[in-house]
Amino acid sequence: MSELRRPRVGHIQFLNCLPIYWGLMRSGALIDVDLHKDTPDQLNAALVAGQLDIGPISLVEYLRHADELLLLPGLAVGSDGPVLSVNVVSTRPLAELDGAKVALGSTSRTGVLLAQMLLAERYGARPEYFRCPPELTQMLLEADAGVLIGDVALRALYEAPGQGLTVTDLGQDWRDWTGLPMVFAVWAVRRDFAAEHPGQVKEVHEAFLRSRDLCLAELDEVAAAAARWEPFDAATLANYFRALDFSLGDRQVAGLREFARRAAALGAVPALPEGGPEFFPV
Amino acid sequence: MSELRRPRVGHIQFLNCLPIYWGLMRSGALIDVDLHKDTPDQLNAALVAGQLDIGPISLVEYLRHADELLLLPGLAVGSDGPVLSVNVVSTRPLAELDGAKVALGSTSRTGVLLAQMLLAERYGARPEYFRCPPELTQMLLEADAGVLIGDVALRALYEAPGQGLTVTDLGQDWRDWTGLPMVFAVWAVRRDFAAEHPGQVKEVHEAFLRSRDLCLAELDEVAAAAARWEPFDAATLANYFRALDFSLGDRQVAGLREFARRAAALGAVPALPEGGPEFFPV
Repeated sequence: MSELRRPRVGHIQFLNCLPIYWGLMRSGALIDVDLHKDTPDQLNAALVAGQLDIGPISLVEYLRHADELLLLPGLAVGSDGPVLSVNVVSTRPLAELDGAKVALGSTSRTGVLLAQMLLAERYGARPEYFRCPPELTQMLLEADAGVLIGDVALRALYEAPGQGLTVTDLGQDWRDWTGLPMVFAVWAVRRDFAAEHPGQVKEVHEAFLRSRDLCLAELDEVAAAAARWEPFDAATLANYFRALDFSLGDRQVAGLREFARRAAALGAVPALPEGGPEFFPV
Repeated sequence: MSELRRPRVGHIQFLNCLPIYWGLMRSGALIDVDLHKDTPDQLNAALVAGQLDIGPISLVEYLRHADELLLLPGLAVGSDGPVLSVNVVSTRPLAELDGAKVALGSTSRTGVLLAQMLLAERYGARPEYFRCPPELTQMLLEADAGVLIGDVALRALYEAPGQGLTVTDLGQDWRDWTGLPMVFAVWAVRRDFAAEHPGQVKEVHEAFLRSRDLCLAELDEVAAAAARWEPFDAATLANYFRALDFSLGDRQVAGLREFARRAAALGAVPALPEGGPEFFPV
């Protein structure tokens, strides 16, 4: 009965994808998908391994597996300016971190690569990196700076300045440097699944776009609901959700290409094929 | 931040709980819970192990762990007459199965115990039981009857009579025998979680009740949506959903007690304490 199987769709169970989930609920789309909620790392691995058919994927992981995947048009998680939740917290300016120790408090591949890229190429700093639990105080006992991503980064944005620390928002820093939006994650479908079930992919894609649009129309309501459970108040959450850019238009694709070009030059990912990224045709 | 954690709530990803899921979606309640979708066996184990706080649990597993659990009032999966999806398919009448071989095509503890109870006590038949994949043709190559539960039982209900087989609906058979509804699964909360977070339990409980009521009001719509993915047409699904009894009123509690009493007499479960089952106070 494989032809009856609902598409296996991944969902990031983090704050930055809560608006998309809200929309999926409100639109009733969840009944038509087999939704797997997990961490970004697990979802990346599951999509690449073929355990999921469709899902969000870190930009870096997409670039490493672009030959197996097609992007869903119009949808991403990024920022066209401050992203609020991908930060370097440092005891001194980034340009003074050459040879210093920098703690990586996340396994987020795109965020960490972006931090390393900016430090090396924009600031000429080649620090010594080490992995570390995402706890700011502990990080800065051993390091001169820490890369924080997600909720802990969002908290640090509000708390670190009071501790005399410098917070650099890497979404903003990337735009200052390149003039382009940053794309942290995209939605992709496995090429084999798209070839066999183009109608299902079209429906899931449309459900995601509808979800995104629904949530943008109800963002204060989403923030108020999320504030019941998240360690942030509704205003902070609304501000955060508004900072995120869930679109993937021409400017975002240009930002994606620029990141891909620079990442490939560093040897971190294969080069994107000419004319890439390749999209699921709609 | 444990005080901020959403309640971990189980959901059975089978056809018989789809109406509840539909309601959870439509009511927007999913944003307030960390929903774990899994098979009944996995959810039973997770609730007993404390990996879930609230969830559906097979009646037999509830009876085995009643000292750790409180029932959520008003909510169950059962039937007051035919259940359509818990069947014995046999080559001859049940009373003639004494000493015969009977295949158990399910790990569902309540359904299997009900079949054994009815065969022994109502029909005086003590066959030899063995586990078997839930595939009717294969079962009946080796056995004189098979116990089928879930989707495969629902299919057999429509297909087996054409093959000259007898189908006994165990929901109906239980009611003919006892005059009472049968309860196959209940919703329970761990006692420790209920003591620490009564407000959250109250909200989840109310969300489930709202979901149940919403879905009953839109049952044809639920059936039409499900028919896109399930190997049954919308009319069959609507008929099935209408056969299910999602309530837990006085009659259902009496049926639960009667089953518990008989199961304890067989040594299958501990006796329910005097005045039991114990409910979460609302």
